[in-house]
Amino acid sequence: MGLVNRDEYEKLRTKALELFDKANIILTEEEKDNVEVADFGLGKIENTGLQVVTYVNTDLVCAKELALLPDQTCPEHKHPTREFDDGKEETFRCRYGKVFLYVEGKPAENLSAQPPEGDGQYYTVFNEIILKPGEQYTIYPNTIHWFKAGSDGAVVSEFSTRSTDEDDIFTDPRIKRIPEKIL
Amino acid sequence: MGLVNRDEYEKLRTKALELFDKANIILTEEEKDNVEVADFGLGKIENTGLQVVTYVNTDLVCAKELALLPDQTCPEHKHPTREFDDGKEETFRCRYGKVFLYVEGKPAENLSAQPPEGDGQYYTVFNEIILKPGEQYTIYPNTIHWFKAGSDGAVVSEFSTRSTDEDDIFTDPRIKRIPEKIL
Ligand SMILES: [Zn+2]
Ligand SMILES: [Zn+2]
Repeated sequence: MGLVNRDEYEKLRTKALELFDKANIILTEEEKDNVEVADFGLGKIENTGLQVVTYVNTDLVCAKELALLPDQTCPEHKHPTREFDDGKEETFRCRYGKVFLYVEGKPAENLSAQPPEGDGQYYTVFNEIILKPGEQYTIYPNTIHWFKAGSDGAVVSEFSTRSTDEDDIFTDPRIKRIPEKIL
Repeated sequence: MGLVNRDEYEKLRTKALELFDKANIILTEEEKDNVEVADFGLGKIENTGLQVVTYVNTDLVCAKELALLPDQTCPEHKHPTREFDDGKEETFRCRYGKVFLYVEGKPAENLSAQPPEGDGQYYTVFNEIILKPGEQYTIYPNTIHWFKAGSDGAVVSEFSTRSTDEDDIFTDPRIKRIPEKIL
């Protein structure tokens, strides 16, 4: 199940804070103390995982900062219709580093990034969007997507409708629905 | 009506870009070229006005960066019920400088900021929230509010539901509903 232990959590939290610092993002002490670390249950978080600070998540609007370690992948998923809406809508805006974002549509002829090694069968969309600082892309509900940081890592602002991680549908059936935050 | 002419627009745009730069916010050239400058029709924009870059504004979610010049005020208003929702919901997160935000509720005993000189009658709420970098506050629909930058100016990220400026209700009846963007 790939639990993140206290030492590993601290290590990942520190790396995330270094990335937020490189992006010149100012966080409160409370936000710094509570960086969310998601290993998606795969037990190889530096390869497949995500570090998150959630600024706000009301019934209607959510804003987060995502930190991705060098070459770290957020695995392929979509946001399906929910009881209260048509599914989560997300805009990703790159603040630092480079992000390789893949969505449904015409596959790139030469991929700039590859799915995590050994997990190729769980990655099915390859329409490539490359985001550099200041660039952004909006993903509407029910659109399959995944993304991976470049070799410097990345910081991405996410502006979205209400976030309910438990609704996300991952292509990889081994993935646990609710990212774990081990504290 | 207080139109902003081309020279004044360029001057305000440049000041806004300086503030975004102090906040280390990276914008595309297109965003830099199209900073929105709102004088609210009062013809004294350095006193009462706002400079805005809108990242995204879909049917559901809007994200903007606001630049406020030193001591500049965004005048008192509320976001009423709309055809499609209960009114705009806004979270303001300070990125640079200091913001004095006033909302409905118990008035502060000693105000840290004052309404624009001569316009006191159009300011009615004085529950004071002071936002420094990394601090934020959420304003739910139909809540009267206004805000003013400190002496260094301010940069504020706004995360909200769909933005429809034409629906905003200002306390000051002289204010034009749609902020002008003179290009
Ligand atoms: Zn997603
Ligand atoms: Zn407002």
